[in-house]
Amino acid sequence: MQKPAPTDYPVIEEIAQRWSPLAFSSRPVETERLRSLFEAARWAASSYNEQPWRYIVAQKSDDETYQKVLACLVEGNQAWAKYAPVLGLSVASTKFQRNQKPNRHAFHDVGQATAHLALEATKQGLYVHQMAGFDADQARSTFQIPEDFEPVAGFALGYPGSISDLSEDHQKREQADRARKPQADFVFGGDWGIAAEF
Amino acid sequence: MQKPAPTDYPVIEEIAQRWSPLAFSSRPVETERLRSLFEAARWAASSYNEQPWRYIVAQKSDDETYQKVLACLVEGNQAWAKYAPVLGLSVASTKFQRNQKPNRHAFHDVGQATAHLALEATKQGLYVHQMAGFDADQARSTFQIPEDFEPVAGFALGYPGSISDLSEDHQKREQADRARKPQADFVFGGDWGIAAEF
Repeated sequence: MQKPAPTDYPVIEEIAQRWSPLAFSSRPVETERLRSLFEAARWAASSYNEQPWRYIVAQKSDDETYQKVLACLVEGNQAWAKYAPVLGLSVASTKFQRNQKPNRHAFHDVGQATAHLALEATKQGLYVHQMAGFDADQARSTFQIPEDFEPVAGFALGYPGSISDLSEDHQKREQADRARKPQADFVFGGDWGIAAEF
Repeated sequence: MQKPAPTDYPVIEEIAQRWSPLAFSSRPVETERLRSLFEAARWAASSYNEQPWRYIVAQKSDDETYQKVLACLVEGNQAWAKYAPVLGLSVASTKFQRNQKPNRHAFHDVGQATAHLALEATKQGLYVHQMAGFDADQARSTFQIPEDFEPVAGFALGYPGSISDLSEDHQKREQADRARKPQADFVFGGDWGIAAEF
């Protein structure tokens, strides 16, 4: 299922086509494609080139790790994410490695890397669904994530699947229109809250 | 000047070509192109589709706002950013609008939006240089940014310029090789810190 963004101005094809489906095919993801996704993440911008992003990645073929990641997700997400061939967690390194000072942009830069990952997925015919709904404490203890790192988000990744596997509620959500605020609501000029004039 | 990433696996052209130059041309940026950049940001993913990103944008033709943004940057950034035709700030809405609870992913999702913006810029022949080096308190007071919002980063945006305008130090930085950690350092399997086996 495709769900292109109804854009007001032209944008890169992968940006228009990227979306976060609930329905994933069980088809495994080829290694080379997965590597391209993380390569895209790798070349994101970051404050002082710190590259604070880390990813825990589990393919369904590694059932033990896959089940561990799945168990970190909230139940509502487990219901559909369990069909995805790849599950993962993003993690932020919260201090600069060179001086151990807090990195104010750790989450920001993990976001940049994961955005790259999701766009590269789109290019490869894959989709990523990021999830805020996961248990960060459980992730930390399950994967022994050290103190200076912070679990950020879960994600499911794979080829698009059939919506018939989804619950009725999820089928509705899957088919709902995509919506965003107009630019006037977030692109300001010199006065806060007032749309830029260009 | 182009500076393509020496990628280990193929990625979207704009991801390979995006980088953060110091040398910008004074050539103004066409309105339609700017709109495409913010349209790309607009369609980023966000937790609960909150879209926590806001942007303050100043073109050089609006000298008053431009100087206000420039003054928020640290001196080292002002030295090169003052040549860029567009300066701006990203700002995060830190609480969910529907329930006023803290949005743990506010910075993360601003990062996703700005990553889209930077890739669309690359598509349009433009470059974005994001800056952690700015005074968030000054930005807040200058632009009367409300309490539930947090200034995130500065950015300069424009067509590539000549490095001869830069200081010697900056010329060296501009010509330095691009570098990233290998995937083995940030893509883990079931054990923290151990490279994923795929």
